[in-house]
Amino acid sequence: MTKDGSVERRGREGEATGLAVEAVRLTAAVITVSDSCAQGLRHDTSGEALQQELRARGFDVVRRVKVADEMREIEDVLRHAAREARLVVTTGGTGIAARDVTPEATLAVCDRVLEGVAELMRSEGRRETPMAVLSRGVCGTRGTSVILNVPGSPAGALSSLRAALPVLPHALDLLGGKTEHETPSGSGTNAGNQQGPGPRAESGRQ
Amino acid sequence: MTKDGSVERRGREGEATGLAVEAVRLTAAVITVSDSCAQGLRHDTSGEALQQELRARGFDVVRRVKVADEMREIEDVLRHAAREARLVVTTGGTGIAARDVTPEATLAVCDRVLEGVAELMRSEGRRETPMAVLSRGVCGTRGTSVILNVPGSPAGALSSLRAALPVLPHALDLLGGKTEHETPSGSGTNAGNQQGPGPRAESGRQ
Amino acid sequence: MTKDGSVERRGREGEATGLAVEAVRLTAAVITVSDSCAQGLRHDTSGEALQQELRARGFDVVRRVKVADEMREIEDVLRHAAREARLVVTTGGTGIAARDVTPEATLAVCDRVLEGVAELMRSEGRRETPMAVLSRGVCGTRGTSVILNVPGSPAGALSSLRAALPVLPHALDLLGGKTEHETPSGSGTNAGNQQGPGPRAESGRQ
Repeated sequence: MTKDGSVERRGREGEATGLAVEAVRLTAAVITVSDSCAQGLRHDTSGEALQQELRARGFDVVRRVKVADEMREIEDVLRHAAREARLVVTTGGTGIAARDVTPEATLAVCDRVLEGVAELMRSEGRRETPMAVLSRGVCGTRGTSVILNVPGSPAGALSSLRAALPVLPHALDLLGGKTEHETPSGSGTNAGNQQGPGPRAESGRQ
Repeated sequence: MTKDGSVERRGREGEATGLAVEAVRLTAAVITVSDSCAQGLRHDTSGEALQQELRARGFDVVRRVKVADEMREIEDVLRHAAREARLVVTTGGTGIAARDVTPEATLAVCDRVLEGVAELMRSEGRRETPMAVLSRGVCGTRGTSVILNVPGSPAGALSSLRAALPVLPHALDLLGGKTEHETPSGSGTNAGNQQGPGPRAESGRQ
Repeated sequence: MTKDGSVERRGREGEATGLAVEAVRLTAAVITVSDSCAQGLRHDTSGEALQQELRARGFDVVRRVKVADEMREIEDVLRHAAREARLVVTTGGTGIAARDVTPEATLAVCDRVLEGVAELMRSEGRRETPMAVLSRGVCGTRGTSVILNVPGSPAGALSSLRAALPVLPHALDLLGGKTEHETPSGSGTNAGNQQGPGPRAESGRQ
């Protein structure tokens, strides 16, 4: 991250050619899961709030979609979004009402689940309201993208996104293949330190 | 909740007719899962403590059952209890001993799992003993009822129930269909706030 | 535990014969999951650190294995290790890189999952780095053994092991059949307390 907390990535072309390095922003998609929003009966305040927050953090929001609380439709939207964006944030459908199925649709399309990120959103959310523990939102990976479920209310959506944001760029780095395992050293005093010391040492915890 | 922390619900008939509103108490069942209690070899202290606590919080305890640590028997008991009571609390069988199968039986009969509630019970329990993390108790929904697994010891049972109680009435409201989605507004400044401001704004986190 | 924090168990023979009681140390195995370590391209610093820590805590480290990030190979190693040691600690392969499969292999061989222990490792790890939430490491039981996944970096491995260690001896006791259910009392004032008062009362939380 840069000093202002925004996310910057250096372009591969820039690195390959040695020309002026271009900053590449991470892509994001915002999916609003809500029957009433999809029908145009409700303004998509949460989706707008998420888009604003992601942009402020340096993400390029390349897609906004509204979809009804229908499992198959949500799965389709997630599959498309994960091809277009590295970070896919859904809002809505994480509760326990009969039509809340966003977590189920997310699990159906994810390769891996990051339970710690959902735990983090809930434990941070509890600082604002005990009801945060009722959110069933999950976080998982699909290919090199991360899908994150946040609640439907603007306040819950923003607070959950903000709880997860500090770890997402690093997760996207790892998914993109930037692992410390790429440069193992066969000998030397630091060889056994799988991540080595320094500013990236934190990445060694996974 | 009322000022003394007890739970009151207004009856549908009262609302429909406009007659004097009648307070309807939420129903609860307490299931003691223990071979020795089921055989009468042990006094069911935990079940009694839970019943007392639930009554003090305004629940109407409509059923008490003792059942052996047998998966199928527990499942049957849970299915019956969830028809009679909105909140079903089990005590016992959440550990890692060979015959502890309460979480498995609970998951077998639940529609959805509320992982955040189990996390909450464990993280609150850790304040009293680090061993609380070994509890495998879960919380889930079956129809419009919530099933909650608490440990077998009286202290662990009470502490876990007390950790979960603050969110259970709201969960039961949502399961009963009292969602904010019932009254969407198509326009207006508040239309985008899926839960709206006010005393129920906390419900918007799911 | 003894005063210095080490783990001691009394031998069955000692108890059975009434002869001088012999202290039996719990057995442990350390499995390093890493392509480069398995190929000898990297020194197994994390495995060594874990072995040292386990010995300092009174465990008898009876096995050290290095294995590549291959699901089937890891499963085989875990099955063997769980026959030789009561506590099996793996290091590495818990992240989200393409070849990280240690949690999947662990879940494939475990009878039960102790989600609270993984939660504990992540929540303690967050005190050191927010990236700890990205670890997918799990903890589970296989027969009377416990399998624990910790991260691949020496710092993450040690911090996770230290987070889990306070509850592991008690978990191993329970798995070994030392449950309070063995001595139920049918009457008396304490009969209903499934664990009874005293120094082991904490065990009653499961």
